[in-house]
Amino acid sequence: MLEDMDLTKKMGKKEFNELYPPLKERLGELQREMRVKGLPVIVVFEGLDPVRTVDTVSKFLLPLDPRGFRYHNTRAPAQLDKEHPFMWRFWVRTPARGQMVIFDRSWYARALAAGSDGLDGRIAEVRRFEKTLSDGGTLFLKFFLYTDPGRLSDCADGECGITDEDLVIGAMEKAIPMMERMMSLTTTEQAPWTVVEAEDAEYAAIKVMRNAIARLEAALASAPAERQIFLPEVEARSPLASIDLRQSVKDSDYEKELERLQKKMRKRQEELYRSKRSLIVVFEGRDASGKGGAISRLTNSLNPRTSKVVPIYAPTEQEKAHHYLWRFYRALPSRGHIAIFDRSWYGRVLVERVDELASEAEWSRAYDEINDFERSLIDDGAELVKIWLEIDKQEQLKRFIDRVDDPKKSWKITADDWSSRQKWDRYTVAVDEMLVRTSTGTAPWTVVEGNDKNFARLKTIRTVLDSTNNI
Amino acid sequence: MLEDMDLTKKMGKKEFNELYPPLKERLGELQREMRVKGLPVIVVFEGLDPVRTVDTVSKFLLPLDPRGFRYHNTRAPAQLDKEHPFMWRFWVRTPARGQMVIFDRSWYARALAAGSDGLDGRIAEVRRFEKTLSDGGTLFLKFFLYTDPGRLSDCADGECGITDEDLVIGAMEKAIPMMERMMSLTTTEQAPWTVVEAEDAEYAAIKVMRNAIARLEAALASAPAERQIFLPEVEARSPLASIDLRQSVKDSDYEKELERLQKKMRKRQEELYRSKRSLIVVFEGRDASGKGGAISRLTNSLNPRTSKVVPIYAPTEQEKAHHYLWRFYRALPSRGHIAIFDRSWYGRVLVERVDELASEAEWSRAYDEINDFERSLIDDGAELVKIWLEIDKQEQLKRFIDRVDDPKKSWKITADDWSSRQKWDRYTVAVDEMLVRTSTGTAPWTVVEGNDKNFARLKTIRTVLDSTNNI
Repeated sequence: MLEDMDLTKKMGKKEFNELYPPLKERLGELQREMRVKGLPVIVVFEGLDPVRTVDTVSKFLLPLDPRGFRYHNTRAPAQLDKEHPFMWRFWVRTPARGQMVIFDRSWYARALAAGSDGLDGRIAEVRRFEKTLSDGGTLFLKFFLYTDPGRLSDCADGECGITDEDLVIGAMEKAIPMMERMMSLTTTEQAPWTVVEAEDAEYAAIKVMRNAIARLEAALASAPAERQIFLPEVEARSPLASIDLRQSVKDSDYEKELERLQKKMRKRQEELYRSKRSLIVVFEGRDASGKGGAISRLTNSLNPRTSKVVPIYAPTEQEKAHHYLWRFYRALPSRGHIAIFDRSWYGRVLVERVDELASEAEWSRAYDEINDFERSLIDDGAELVKIWLEIDKQEQLKRFIDRVDDPKKSWKITADDWSSRQKWDRYTVAVDEMLVRTSTGTAPWTVVEGNDKNFARLKTIRTVLDSTNNI
Repeated sequence: MLEDMDLTKKMGKKEFNELYPPLKERLGELQREMRVKGLPVIVVFEGLDPVRTVDTVSKFLLPLDPRGFRYHNTRAPAQLDKEHPFMWRFWVRTPARGQMVIFDRSWYARALAAGSDGLDGRIAEVRRFEKTLSDGGTLFLKFFLYTDPGRLSDCADGECGITDEDLVIGAMEKAIPMMERMMSLTTTEQAPWTVVEAEDAEYAAIKVMRNAIARLEAALASAPAERQIFLPEVEARSPLASIDLRQSVKDSDYEKELERLQKKMRKRQEELYRSKRSLIVVFEGRDASGKGGAISRLTNSLNPRTSKVVPIYAPTEQEKAHHYLWRFYRALPSRGHIAIFDRSWYGRVLVERVDELASEAEWSRAYDEINDFERSLIDDGAELVKIWLEIDKQEQLKRFIDRVDDPKKSWKITADDWSSRQKWDRYTVAVDEMLVRTSTGTAPWTVVEGNDKNFARLKTIRTVLDSTNNI
């Protein structure tokens, strides 16, 4: 495929000087239109030789308003990148609505640089990433700038504004067949590749700009059709209906057992740290089900240096302008660390579904997206524990009234709490469906009976300990 | 000083169990009050032995609502930290209004770890950092947890949840005298040190909490008095009055000279990269003075991989909640890179002064703060070029009218532009004062005559080249 490209294609200076200015102007206009319509765009430049393609990339950037794009030159991963899943460094850099992000080398170069072992796994990650974002409305423009592999540039470290490492990929013997394999597996309808003959920077720049303009025009002309989801039927059972909320633990037993479990938890934290396994605990539950109390009993004995609690509230404007998974990628723990999410990405299929903040197409799609996301975490070596704290309607009312009456707790209760209480049954449907669709073999849900706080707190810590006793 | 501390101080379990719960509750209350009143708080924990002080730190964190604080365990600098000024990694982590940020080890441990050479320079940086933030309303709580230097913990790498590097500081022969020197030079009225005998975690936790509560109560009770500034008189001269705006360059000369200068600029970029010097170019100027055009001529030939344009607009909500310098720290270039600021931190003494978005105390203080900030950049090896683009009132009117009439440019003009035009003379006063007060020997301003775009664009690039020809 690549080796059949015609690398003699050239463009005279005069022809370029005629063609370039109107394309520049058009690209500038389209960028403004993107911003008005809120279209997020990811542009990928890959190639064998970063020295010889820099002028092509520059010519593409020149007409862009700096206010509307960010440019990332992807290098070898930093320590922090290495301590997170493979796609993490790209996820956290995805564009907000109306923004363009340009990756000069990207996940493709990094997948190549990691070698042929495990390449298929990395390709699968890339496909999930591009699909999830495309489904969320992001436009992908992917260009492979093909130069003669027989004449790679030769730069000492720090010359040409690049490092030696940048050139290694082009020099790899297997780079071309591996790249071809990746490209054929990642050319999708939503995110196709365009291969550009790039020996001549002027010729290449014009081809890139024409293609970008055509794809931007098409994307801006038609609002993307919401992808319809066919959700497979699940057996009509309600996990919530089958639990026994009457379980309880006496205060005297509770104190002793709590101390024992907390000590074990502190030890488990050290084991996790030593074995470089991270632990992610997700807490979801009804309002006033006792998430805060259970979390503080769990974290009480933990070393704060390698653990954190991540409280999730209504998204900020900045968060709303990104894909809904973006803010969770930003909060993932480093290897060996613990992160406890007080509410989580499951908001998509709970509050956003029930309150109609997400469309049906969006929340239906989210079960798969979440399963994919969690699979990436587990493949990366994380332990994932998911806890649903359940209370019954009467217990919730009792706790709401307590909060209203107690000046020390009254800040904990808002009008939103009363309004979600009115949607109790619709939440029950959403929770049951969530428990069934996202309880996977590697990331099952545990329902914790929450009417008795002592019982719930002990069961929570036990669940975390049981789920991590194989490390 | 430190060695006279009484390390036998202890607290029985029973006494602790009585004293701790009410302090916990009070600290939680004060944290909520902080959020309501928008007080930003920085808590520093230093000490010789991180293993033996972790329990004290944990007991302080326990009552805090995770929504309102962030905890940073400061380790050896990552690559990105090394590529920025010493205080950069702390500046970018400073709290927003109402937030508490806890540094478990901080700039003090890092200043120590860098050794006694240059310690006084680092202390000066620290003093400037704490003063600038205190003046901006941030409360500092600084605790030194003193344990017996004769019995440092012994942990293999990865044991105890910490790395070997963490223990190095405590083991340094000179650590104690150096730390004492730093503490005596950084105990200010606004940010005093509290030394805590920390052999016994319970005793230490109670002492820390009592002190924190007292300082928080005092800070919350009294809105901080705005620090009055006595600005020294400057000679009554107007730099703007003395320039000749009639200078111009013919189109035919312009094209050739531009190409020559751009080639030189590209070469200069490579030299900067090789010598690991960063370059910061600040553009300020009247509306429609041609900043955008001058910037794009300057960047036209640059390699985008090591340069970026940073457009500065009205601050976002998140930016407004931080110290005004915070967002500029976040945008600083890595070593060897170029950052071009399209408007900058000088907004504080220009638009914020003229539009009364900053109080007189705030903008008067800003001249010193900005000179300090720029000195840090230069001490760190950056080249700093500051350009004021000036046009006269008639030329501005002409350009405004062009923009209104041209559909391709009409997005460039807003009601704000007309309203700042009405404040022309007040801007002139502010600009003159800025030019005089912040033109320092190492970071002088260059006024570029902007009525003729050709002239302005060439002079801009020449200024940048001339200011960096010594690297």
